[in-house]
Amino acid sequence: MTTELERLAVRLREFARVREWEQFHTPKNLVMALAGEVGELVAEFQWLTADESSSPDPDTLARMRTELGDVTLYLVRLADVLGVDLVEAAQAKLDDNDRRYDADLYRGSAKKAPRAT
Amino acid sequence: MTTELERLAVRLREFARVREWEQFHTPKNLVMALAGEVGELVAEFQWLTADESSSPDPDTLARMRTELGDVTLYLVRLADVLGVDLVEAAQAKLDDNDRRYDADLYRGSAKKAPRAT
Amino acid sequence: MTTELERLAVRLREFARVREWEQFHTPKNLVMALAGEVGELVAEFQWLTADESSSPDPDTLARMRTELGDVTLYLVRLADVLGVDLVEAAQAKLDDNDRRYDADLYRGSAKKAPRAT
Amino acid sequence: MTTELERLAVRLREFARVREWEQFHTPKNLVMALAGEVGELVAEFQWLTADESSSPDPDTLARMRTELGDVTLYLVRLADVLGVDLVEAAQAKLDDNDRRYDADLYRGSAKKAPRAT
Repeated sequence: MTTELERLAVRLREFARVREWEQFHTPKNLVMALAGEVGELVAEFQWLTADESSSPDPDTLARMRTELGDVTLYLVRLADVLGVDLVEAAQAKLDDNDRRYDADLYRGSAKKAPRAT
Repeated sequence: MTTELERLAVRLREFARVREWEQFHTPKNLVMALAGEVGELVAEFQWLTADESSSPDPDTLARMRTELGDVTLYLVRLADVLGVDLVEAAQAKLDDNDRRYDADLYRGSAKKAPRAT
Repeated sequence: MTTELERLAVRLREFARVREWEQFHTPKNLVMALAGEVGELVAEFQWLTADESSSPDPDTLARMRTELGDVTLYLVRLADVLGVDLVEAAQAKLDDNDRRYDADLYRGSAKKAPRAT
Repeated sequence: MTTELERLAVRLREFARVREWEQFHTPKNLVMALAGEVGELVAEFQWLTADESSSPDPDTLARMRTELGDVTLYLVRLADVLGVDLVEAAQAKLDDNDRRYDADLYRGSAKKAPRAT
């Protein structure tokens, strides 16, 4: 079964192909584009308090949504050219975190666990 | 039907709940965590040439995959607390880009299109 | 008169020269290294409240200081290879901001001014 | 003697004071603003080859200079509210790097040294 992220990756491949942009879409360039978009996303939150960030007004939320869309596009495109399955990679990392951050030990704590060895 | 990203979001919700970490997971904090992880991802590519970034050795690719997993986890968690559907947001942005970047006009060009008005 | 940033730039030039690292120090690579270090700096603040970020404990402040040092090193090195004077560039931008953000109009407001035309 | 960075910090303090922006200038908010500006700087380089990044055309260099100015402003302001001397922090880090990266051992190599213990 084709997932929604695979369909998005296919659409991005075609988008790049018809514009002859594959030449620009090296992993190195794409990770920079991703970083640039994440910078724009961060900028939407920079002057908000924690509470304000949790209930943004409709205009602000619309801009956040647009930037989240941009971040997703470059993340999916980067993973595609590298041949990485994002959901599998995320699940593998979450399995790790489940082991590293024992629920009883880290309850209510923002401390970082030591690196798994 | 539940998508793979929704299942990941649900798993992350539970991961935060049992650790009582919801208090830390404001959108403002999560976008910072996302930016931190993107920084680690960028660092994997910083000294590679464009060609090297396209065919990383297995160890480097494994580290890139781990960092892509981290980025995906925070992106999915951030979108979840904001109530944003990442794939819909990405598709809406790609629809925009399809209109902004006429294939004939921007073929082989890395120039930025003027903002849609 | 040689300024402290010029002395730092000269020391970094020599540091790169004796290690034959100039080949890696293209502006493109250096801006990625800068982004990576800024990601590490952001990570130090991600779970802190605004108040906690204003009075970090000594260990946290020491880590922030180390990361600020890294950011400064790559920023100075990047500006040096591009031939840009950071302080002049910052002053020019601050002159702009002085004009864009009229003190009476923007007093107590975090709104963004429209781009100067 | 007052250095050029101290003079810039003083000017930024006054800029924030007359606009009553100190309330927004927590270290947490400022590091986010810094990350946002670094994102804009990275975006200037994302589609350039390494060679192109080393000899940008005048318009591109002017935009890079503007973004470098923004990055410097937020970096200096952040360090000022934290009470950190950027040049001292950078020199301390460079002293460390001098020890970690033995010139003979790391000549021509982009490998990362193990963390000092």
